[in-house]
Amino acid sequence: MNIKNNKIILKKRPIGFPKLDDFEKASETITNLNYGEIIIKVIWLSLDPYMRGRMSEAKSYTTPIKIGDVITGGAVGKVVSSKCPNFKEGDIVEGFTLGWQEYAKVNSKMVRKIDPSLAPIQTAVGVLGMPGMTAYFGLFEICKPVPGDNLVVSAASGAVGQLVGQLAKIAGCNVTGIAGSDEKCQYLKETLNFDNVINYQKDNVFKKIKEYCPEGVNVYFDNVGGKIADDVISNIAPFGRIGVCGVISQYNLTEMETGMRVQRAVLTNQASVEGFLVFRFEQKYSIARKRMANWLNQKKLIWKEDIVLGLEKAPESFIGLMKGKNFGKLLIKLDS
Amino acid sequence: MNIKNNKIILKKRPIGFPKLDDFEKASETITNLNYGEIIIKVIWLSLDPYMRGRMSEAKSYTTPIKIGDVITGGAVGKVVSSKCPNFKEGDIVEGFTLGWQEYAKVNSKMVRKIDPSLAPIQTAVGVLGMPGMTAYFGLFEICKPVPGDNLVVSAASGAVGQLVGQLAKIAGCNVTGIAGSDEKCQYLKETLNFDNVINYQKDNVFKKIKEYCPEGVNVYFDNVGGKIADDVISNIAPFGRIGVCGVISQYNLTEMETGMRVQRAVLTNQASVEGFLVFRFEQKYSIARKRMANWLNQKKLIWKEDIVLGLEKAPESFIGLMKGKNFGKLLIKLDS
Repeated sequence: MNIKNNKIILKKRPIGFPKLDDFEKASETITNLNYGEIIIKVIWLSLDPYMRGRMSEAKSYTTPIKIGDVITGGAVGKVVSSKCPNFKEGDIVEGFTLGWQEYAKVNSKMVRKIDPSLAPIQTAVGVLGMPGMTAYFGLFEICKPVPGDNLVVSAASGAVGQLVGQLAKIAGCNVTGIAGSDEKCQYLKETLNFDNVINYQKDNVFKKIKEYCPEGVNVYFDNVGGKIADDVISNIAPFGRIGVCGVISQYNLTEMETGMRVQRAVLTNQASVEGFLVFRFEQKYSIARKRMANWLNQKKLIWKEDIVLGLEKAPESFIGLMKGKNFGKLLIKLDS
Repeated sequence: MNIKNNKIILKKRPIGFPKLDDFEKASETITNLNYGEIIIKVIWLSLDPYMRGRMSEAKSYTTPIKIGDVITGGAVGKVVSSKCPNFKEGDIVEGFTLGWQEYAKVNSKMVRKIDPSLAPIQTAVGVLGMPGMTAYFGLFEICKPVPGDNLVVSAASGAVGQLVGQLAKIAGCNVTGIAGSDEKCQYLKETLNFDNVINYQKDNVFKKIKEYCPEGVNVYFDNVGGKIADDVISNIAPFGRIGVCGVISQYNLTEMETGMRVQRAVLTNQASVEGFLVFRFEQKYSIARKRMANWLNQKKLIWKEDIVLGLEKAPESFIGLMKGKNFGKLLIKLDS
């Protein structure tokens, strides 16, 4: 059995924002399936901000991709060949490291089987996958919202942000979303029922937060860091909680940016800042997944995807993600 | 009954570091003791960094002192006149707002009686008072040290810092203290048995922390903020805890200083930063006070005071405190 696999590899490490020629198409022939391995035909790629870290050599919370290696990332696909008794041809699986390629040969331990009758299969890398778990656990376990809290979320129309805001509404919070266009803000307010929206491209974030949260921000779910975070944290309420989920404003800087140190605001307000990676909550995923699926079915959660067709579109879509061009969870659907 | 009271008042609000002419001597005659009030002859003044905040108009966690008012601060004294059944002449009391004056007329609710047989009475504003409680609760309730943790404390020979390091040793930590002179560092290492010391006036703090804590800083008890905090936090360990107790490096700035934002280090390491004010632990003070007194008696805790004689020395001593000139807990002993 020989399968021709087209893939996108890291040609060179991006400096600042990734550019198209940091990536390159390549192909290979997949053979030699060993015991325990399976071959997956990739159907959906998940493009996520954290992947930028993997493209750099610097120590981060994920292992760097080597030059010449396929771009690693979450994906959903169908098993086309299996030497593992637990998987058979046709099974739909999701894996965190399948990557930007048509076929992935992996040890079956690297994937989990998903039930396609539950929800569209791409939700396994979305609302019922890593972004969904990140929103759920980051909000409920790190930020600990209480009904009546003023909650602010940045990158509010992104994969994680849109869910954080809606989950916070379910939890009885007053929700302010920060996003980068009027179209996104309108969607958050009119479709997702956020209480307030701020377009950081044209509004004064500090003043708007002060206006919407005159008694201070009780919870800030931070996806972006940088100046926006400074403006929100300057309005933190006594005993406020700041969950640091991502710092997308910083991923593409070539030099470290200085800014407001949090210590003074944190001390005066007895506030806390905590960073988290979703994997620490792994043993509780099944609980969250069930609740998220119920809320989806009850239309208490709405899930917006931004779907781009074709493996070859992955690099430019990823660059767009870094610049906030996506609107909703960014996915690549492979031609089939 | 007429008592002549000499005091030091706020003449004008300091800009940057306080100067001698921001303060002024004044006197008044105390008369008219109402029911519930007592007059205290002040014996010891406690000079603490947080008092700088009270001299500014800006919102902080303490109420600003009005121009012309006595400088508010903790003190210990003896009751010389009482119209409150719970206090009699000769009782030794401690109060958080007695201030820089020879006599304080206050409602008896503002003070607590102390037992002079327990320890020298000035410890009521030291190891058994606010600084002691700050060290105890900031360390054990906010930073939650575990035996084997690498703990770093800044302003390590100050009122709070010296206790944090010793309590952390009792808790089984590996302790690194940061202080501003070789004399202080030598004392921390040789008398208080800190494992490592860093003189921030001449050492490279970042490199020294890396050397002393190669696996990262599990706990940072931050009394200073600013560049020193940046250097320590850049070495934070996975799941590290940063307790923000004070930001003395920032109190006397005329413009906000920018610096390293913590978000990236906090995210990558799933670390947390929490600010606290000791008063939130008030209901537990008696538990801590008893333990601290025991440890003092057993010589497991050593308590260093920096005593200056004379009310009129309070302004220059306070200015010295802002610049790190004190060595140990700074106290003014009034002439008697």
